[in-house]
Amino acid sequence: MADPKNILFIMCDQLRWDYLSCYGHPNLDTPAIDSLATRGVLFNRAYCQSPVCGASRMSFYTGRYVNSHGASWNFVPLRIGEQTIGDYLRPRGIRTALVGKTHMRADYAGMARLGIDLQSNEGVFASECGFEPYERDDGIHPSSNHDPFPKYNDYLRAHGFGGDNPWEDWANSAEGPNGELLSGWYLENSKLPARIPAEHSETAYITGRAIDFMKEAAEDPWCLHLSYIKPHWPYMAPAPYATMYKPEDTYPPVRSEKEKDNPQPVFGAFINQRVSQTMARDEVRNAVLPGYMGMIKQIDDEIGRLLNFMESKNLMDNTMIVFTSDHGDYLGDHWLGEKDLFHEPSVHIPLIVYDPSRKADKTRGTVCNELVEAIDLAPTFVAATGGYPQPHIFDGKALQPLLHGGEIKDWRSYVISEYDYAFMDPRIELQSAPQECWLRMVFDGRFKYIHCERYRPILFDLQNDPDELTDLGDDPAYEEERIRLEKLLFEWAMKPRQRVTVTDGLLEAVDVQRNISQAGILIGYYNADELANVSKEWDDKPTFAAFNPVWAKAQKKLKGEK
Amino acid sequence: MADPKNILFIMCDQLRWDYLSCYGHPNLDTPAIDSLATRGVLFNRAYCQSPVCGASRMSFYTGRYVNSHGASWNFVPLRIGEQTIGDYLRPRGIRTALVGKTHMRADYAGMARLGIDLQSNEGVFASECGFEPYERDDGIHPSSNHDPFPKYNDYLRAHGFGGDNPWEDWANSAEGPNGELLSGWYLENSKLPARIPAEHSETAYITGRAIDFMKEAAEDPWCLHLSYIKPHWPYMAPAPYATMYKPEDTYPPVRSEKEKDNPQPVFGAFINQRVSQTMARDEVRNAVLPGYMGMIKQIDDEIGRLLNFMESKNLMDNTMIVFTSDHGDYLGDHWLGEKDLFHEPSVHIPLIVYDPSRKADKTRGTVCNELVEAIDLAPTFVAATGGYPQPHIFDGKALQPLLHGGEIKDWRSYVISEYDYAFMDPRIELQSAPQECWLRMVFDGRFKYIHCERYRPILFDLQNDPDELTDLGDDPAYEEERIRLEKLLFEWAMKPRQRVTVTDGLLEAVDVQRNISQAGILIGYYNADELANVSKEWDDKPTFAAFNPVWAKAQKKLKGEK
Repeated sequence: MADPKNILFIMCDQLRWDYLSCYGHPNLDTPAIDSLATRGVLFNRAYCQSPVCGASRMSFYTGRYVNSHGASWNFVPLRIGEQTIGDYLRPRGIRTALVGKTHMRADYAGMARLGIDLQSNEGVFASECGFEPYERDDGIHPSSNHDPFPKYNDYLRAHGFGGDNPWEDWANSAEGPNGELLSGWYLENSKLPARIPAEHSETAYITGRAIDFMKEAAEDPWCLHLSYIKPHWPYMAPAPYATMYKPEDTYPPVRSEKEKDNPQPVFGAFINQRVSQTMARDEVRNAVLPGYMGMIKQIDDEIGRLLNFMESKNLMDNTMIVFTSDHGDYLGDHWLGEKDLFHEPSVHIPLIVYDPSRKADKTRGTVCNELVEAIDLAPTFVAATGGYPQPHIFDGKALQPLLHGGEIKDWRSYVISEYDYAFMDPRIELQSAPQECWLRMVFDGRFKYIHCERYRPILFDLQNDPDELTDLGDDPAYEEERIRLEKLLFEWAMKPRQRVTVTDGLLEAVDVQRNISQAGILIGYYNADELANVSKEWDDKPTFAAFNPVWAKAQKKLKGEK
Repeated sequence: MADPKNILFIMCDQLRWDYLSCYGHPNLDTPAIDSLATRGVLFNRAYCQSPVCGASRMSFYTGRYVNSHGASWNFVPLRIGEQTIGDYLRPRGIRTALVGKTHMRADYAGMARLGIDLQSNEGVFASECGFEPYERDDGIHPSSNHDPFPKYNDYLRAHGFGGDNPWEDWANSAEGPNGELLSGWYLENSKLPARIPAEHSETAYITGRAIDFMKEAAEDPWCLHLSYIKPHWPYMAPAPYATMYKPEDTYPPVRSEKEKDNPQPVFGAFINQRVSQTMARDEVRNAVLPGYMGMIKQIDDEIGRLLNFMESKNLMDNTMIVFTSDHGDYLGDHWLGEKDLFHEPSVHIPLIVYDPSRKADKTRGTVCNELVEAIDLAPTFVAATGGYPQPHIFDGKALQPLLHGGEIKDWRSYVISEYDYAFMDPRIELQSAPQECWLRMVFDGRFKYIHCERYRPILFDLQNDPDELTDLGDDPAYEEERIRLEKLLFEWAMKPRQRVTVTDGLLEAVDVQRNISQAGILIGYYNADELANVSKEWDDKPTFAAFNPVWAKAQKKLKGEK
């Protein structure tokens, strides 16, 4: 086992953390994903930085909070200049490619302003979130002008599944008893198999493209982001997966009537959304959930196929493998559909990291209960490949201390997640201005506090109320808790990482003020004697360089010390 | 008088707000600058966003808090992608140029990463803070490799002031009785005249270049940033200005022994700096202050010359003129030299705005006591020239409501200023890590609260203690005040403007969720009947578009309403 040469970064879309057997699902067996947990570390308390595709992914890719990178929802371009995983790995010779979804919108206005040629290498990387777009496919291709020409459609046509939009008509539709098309957009059809055979479904196709990439990359080091579209809606699985599970195989809905009784206004507005009203109905859950589980089961089978391929090429010995999801899915829990808010089904994510290096041997098969965040992956990849840690840019922390075991102190005492509902109908219901729609969660492992602009906070005590059914946000008994948690949010908000152009290391290594003086910029010297006196002190009395271990070592050597 | 066609944005460097006669200096007559106040509005409570050149200027130019743009000190490149005044004005045909200093460092690493050609127009603008560098001169040209080739040196040589570095040897040195060079870097020489005649000094040269620009620009609309280097150090004025003022013409030092008695640690560390120790000495003040006042007097004379030129070209009728400074100078007040902290001599800035338009007639010659910030200028320039207000990018607010008079409500209840002392010796003394050096001031017009990472806050009550000699930061009697002010800082910190790629206006005008549905992305529909029912509602029940005045107007028209 060597230090990782390659990185395989697998992401599912909208996969709940608790719908995997390694995370305890009683009726959904996922042996391939479980096998990664057996070989690596299963993180039991991992959180996404925003429970919505675009914002969450931009945090995964930049290693930065939404507060830092600014791409706060799905249609918000990642501003030009933000760096992503590829920007850190590529300069060190690591081919960094994408197969599947990023949901990244390019900042074309910014690129035009700066005269960046879209056809240049730099232009392509800047518009593809830093990845080489080996196969970009965001997975949503309705019959409209929204992203209408996936390569997958060409693939389907070449395999005999024709028409204007085989993605919609074959891969995401079922068939009625008389051969009529039943759209996968309608949730009542989620319990039916897609018209496409499993081997030509999106999940299988995307896996195949990952295998193509690995074959092509051969001996060169690489980082592959394999980003599955499923189990995101349209909730359609092909046979046999679509019919493998029954409604009684799913978790029962987690919700109580009490939640709807005078709810906190933002929570109430999200309950009022059509998608929430729909997903809260039992008939809908009973149609959707078997399909959802079927899609996950298929992903597991495909990951099994991929791992077999990697075994056969000896790639398991030199490839770090990460398995995660961008966020979860309420599936009717708490009377909500989709994601967006901060209950566990939405904001808690699965995260498994397999590190092939010997250093990770003592943690294999263990469960880690430390609080970790999606933003920890980018620094983990940089650390795995020996790069500079970028503490001035990354809000996240490399996971290697947790992967390599040993004593862990001061890891992290809380996680943060954010949501900007400016783009959502609740903004209209609440008549909030676009700048007033920030929700921010701080979770310390027990208490989950959600700060809501314009409204009272939401608070859950997960120790006494693991299902998050009792909102303590206005309970006078918890005033001190709320003040304590708001202080954590304040601490966090006061440390945005926007000074991205100067490293902490430079500050620690360079004696800034002395350098300024030595360049002839003399600040505060009355006369030449004062300068002479200060100059004499410079060698004996390092100031900034005192924190620089390289300098300290050199000084010791100079003095004959060891 | 027409709406402004041009903008003249004059900035001094390190000019204290109270060293001008229009701001009440009893012994320093500045009639030209005062004449702008007579014709425009004098802002009596204007604050810079960071009391240090680079960070303050990046806030002026971007219209954003340091917290937003990230260039937190002098040597921090403004990250590629941040937009500045020129980026907003140039696309609308306004030539936006620089004469003098910006202190901007270009993000060459970012430009290289994005493949931006340094020689292209876009590359030049990106590396010159969005300005056309008609004459870039940051004003610090010691005999070292720091910015060694100003065009001003060529000018001096052409006028017979020769040598390797005439900036240092002529413009910023004096002469001893035996003809020996007395360096302007040494403060004891600040009371002597520079070797250069006034007409060839930096202040005169830079003014001349501004006049050159106006002649060249002719009838085309322009925005000129005329950015004087003085009265920044080296504190050297030419004759006759150097000897116009005596120590007794200056304000006496504002300080008390009590301040040095167990000071708040950050304040204490700044007092301990060499420059502070030096500037606190009377002999130093007595040498420096006459020179400082002489430099200001010369600036006023040169602005008089410029205004006469503009009068002769009828430019006063169509040019908005702003006069301000990037920050102040302690000059020994509070036992400090330089700037950096948040006492009034450092963070309070002069600000005068002359708006030629008729709308501003009723405010001419008035004093405005509203709290205003340096970041208000960029949006003011955009508004003056009819641009889109950019509320998703600008932290500042256009000043036109204050310039045009009438009822003002909800202007602003506090101002913010920030300082990152990671680059300063106090970081070493306090052994702080580079991310732990943030100081943040909130001032509500009476109480000034300074939040200091790792240390207790500093608090002044300017109503009872206008000289800021009593730090109430640990006075138990002010606990409630501190909590209230920290809540304001929290409110501010939770609203960073990083979602810069989508306008608020778009969000208000577009029905995001309906558009998504109409593009065929159907979220949460159980069957076709549900979609049909929702579709019927769409025309009658606008959601996002309800806030769009254009839409509302169209709807009214449709219904025959007025």
